Amino acid sequence: MELRDLVNDRPAHLVLLVVDGLGGYADARHGSELEEATTPNLDQLAAEGSCGVALPAGPGITVGSGPGHLALFGYDPLEYDLGRGLLSALGLGVDLRPGDLAARGNLATLDADDNVVDRRAGRIDDARARAIVDRLEAGVSLPDVEVSFRHVSEHRVLLVLRGEGLDPRVGDLDPQRTGVPPLAPTATAPEAERTARLLEQLDAAMREALVGQDADVVLFRGFDTHHDLPSMQERFGLRPATVATYPMYRGVAKLVGMDLLPVVDSLGEQIALMADRWNDYDYLFAHEKAADSAGHDGRRDAKIAAIEAVDALVPDLVALAPDVLCITADHAAPTQLSSHSWHPVPTLLWGEAVGRDAVTSFGERACAAGMLGHLRTQDLLPLMLASARRLEKYGA
Amino acid sequence: MELRDLVNDRPAHLVLLVVDGLGGYADARHGSELEEATTPNLDQLAAEGSCGVALPAGPGITVGSGPGHLALFGYDPLEYDLGRGLLSALGLGVDLRPGDLAARGNLATLDADDNVVDRRAGRIDDARARAIVDRLEAGVSLPDVEVSFRHVSEHRVLLVLRGEGLDPRVGDLDPQRTGVPPLAPTATAPEAERTARLLEQLDAAMREALVGQDADVVLFRGFDTHHDLPSMQERFGLRPATVATYPMYRGVAKLVGMDLLPVVDSLGEQIALMADRWNDYDYLFAHEKAADSAGHDGRRDAKIAAIEAVDALVPDLVALAPDVLCITADHAAPTQLSSHSWHPVPTLLWGEAVGRDAVTSFGERACAAGMLGHLRTQDLLPLMLASARRLEKYGA
Repeated sequence: MELRDLVNDRPAHLVLLVVDGLGGYADARHGSELEEATTPNLDQLAAEGSCGVALPAGPGITVGSGPGHLALFGYDPLEYDLGRGLLSALGLGVDLRPGDLAARGNLATLDADDNVVDRRAGRIDDARARAIVDRLEAGVSLPDVEVSFRHVSEHRVLLVLRGEGLDPRVGDLDPQRTGVPPLAPTATAPEAERTARLLEQLDAAMREALVGQDADVVLFRGFDTHHDLPSMQERFGLRPATVATYPMYRGVAKLVGMDLLPVVDSLGEQIALMADRWNDYDYLFAHEKAADSAGHDGRRDAKIAAIEAVDALVPDLVALAPDVLCITADHAAPTQLSSHSWHPVPTLLWGEAVGRDAVTSFGERACAAGMLGHLRTQDLLPLMLASARRLEKYGA
Repeated sequence: MELRDLVNDRPAHLVLLVVDGLGGYADARHGSELEEATTPNLDQLAAEGSCGVALPAGPGITVGSGPGHLALFGYDPLEYDLGRGLLSALGLGVDLRPGDLAARGNLATLDADDNVVDRRAGRIDDARARAIVDRLEAGVSLPDVEVSFRHVSEHRVLLVLRGEGLDPRVGDLDPQRTGVPPLAPTATAPEAERTARLLEQLDAAMREALVGQDADVVLFRGFDTHHDLPSMQERFGLRPATVATYPMYRGVAKLVGMDLLPVVDSLGEQIALMADRWNDYDYLFAHEKAADSAGHDGRRDAKIAAIEAVDALVPDLVALAPDVLCITADHAAPTQLSSHSWHPVPTLLWGEAVGRDAVTSFGERACAAGMLGHLRTQDLLPLMLASARRLEKYGA
């Protein structure tokens, strides 16, 4: 049985709000950030709907944003293994062609011994970073291969290589820590040897171009190439669009066939944009970043405030009158760890046909006892379809 | 994605305590044995950590100790299908070679009609059993096949056959009940016909050697041959060791690559041994047998006492300061059934990054509402690795 075979064309609206990094955990001192935030509107949805805790890629696995979002869109993130370069390229609107190689990099600084000092070049601002990327674009080239640099945001850079015989099976140059030198390019498959050699030349040319600049090197990671994923249209019969604003999330959305609506400034504007385009789509994905950023920085109060700011906008989401609304995250980001984590993600589903469970407040421990149970994140999409009455009966 | 690709080398200690047969179930008269035991220390760990109920091999499946432990060590017990003979051989330090056949047997008594009277020969003691096994070793032989008997404990015997063309696909001789005759050797695959015929000869020779002894027959079961399993080192990047004392559990531990530390006399001594060897390993497995034995015998008070004895040693485990501590069982052993069972096994995970759920006492019904949910036993190892911060993020 393919899920696609069960999908009908009943008019219905499915809305997914990703509160990036929402999940956390209680410890000896505190409840989780979500548990301690004052969230009357989310609590009301939890009381009126059903809750659970979601695992993006199985027990113990911490996911990045790419796999986390693929799972939310109904894709097995272990089956569709995407590199950060590919996701960034898509987010920037760079159309990767078959054979192109993409990677994400950080502008970084080195000490006199060539050890990494700062993997973000002092959290360099956009204007200075853009100037450095322009310098790389103008000054770095390779024989027989087209080299292109694009500024993403702050210290983040996208590299795209276009030419014959490039192979993505090369290791990262980013050592992911300071006090050690950048990693040397290595091939992880014999066919990628030439690509690894090209990256050595590229690294040398970049270092030369960066002499005297605010960054000494670009630490690339996540080399990847063009992928074709089956679209959400094909797999689920949906007409999907996103109002997300960050390149990464727009990138994943584009990869699964979503229309990319214009970039706006706030979650409130994302909701207004959904209202404007309500009749053009039946699946709309909104994304709020602030809780994740606060989680990464270990700022508990900021994460709580970010969650409360989302809560204040929940009535606007409800006013759209979606048939089903899902509010969850792509992964947990506990402030105790200042990073993504493997902890189960609190998840709520709300809508006319969802049904109420016993959960009356939106929090990790409450959700763990909810009707959705401990589910795989990728199972949320079928649950949303069903709750919107978009799935026919299987079997007679 | 392989879990191994995500494992880092952060120094961290993972400790697994298996309270064999811990799980049970409440009925009209009582809570489970664990629920009714007084366990202040386990309750405190439950309150400080996260709980769940674990299924060793899926819903409804009752497992033996072999598959139960393989699951605890992170192996799918349905994929790695091991016979009891193999496990016993490993536990006794008998080095099975490729092609060898091993089986575990019980010394048993028959009545005048050759029906089984007692599958444990009156719970024969070690000394008398050893004398019988010596008699078998001296008096039983087969053409072209090396036959070896080893005493395991009480009524338990290990058989090892070494020779050309032996095939483990033969049925058990143990009917697993009394009042019926032993089963005749049968081949479950055509290639095992010769082996089944050899077992007929062996059975006749054994009965002859046992005339006038305290046992009339040996009921063999679980014929198996040498297997190569990928080690925990390979699969999870761990340096594992066990302080378990019983042959079976040491056998499984050896099979997955654990170092076998010296056999000591009690759980308290196992914990002391872990402390002694703390810096040599990052994964340590301790095993306590008493609750399982009491479960098998249907002795409710003894099982409760066994659990309370474990509880009293929990502070010593905590004093080791592991990064993550998991306390669970390889299977349930309810005294109502006097056997292993399929009931979900209460499980707790404790450590700095585990997070607290809403469970405040360690028992089956409390654990069922915990943050670990209803999980597969084999998923505990990834959760332990994650909680010890030994797993890197998957994807960007």
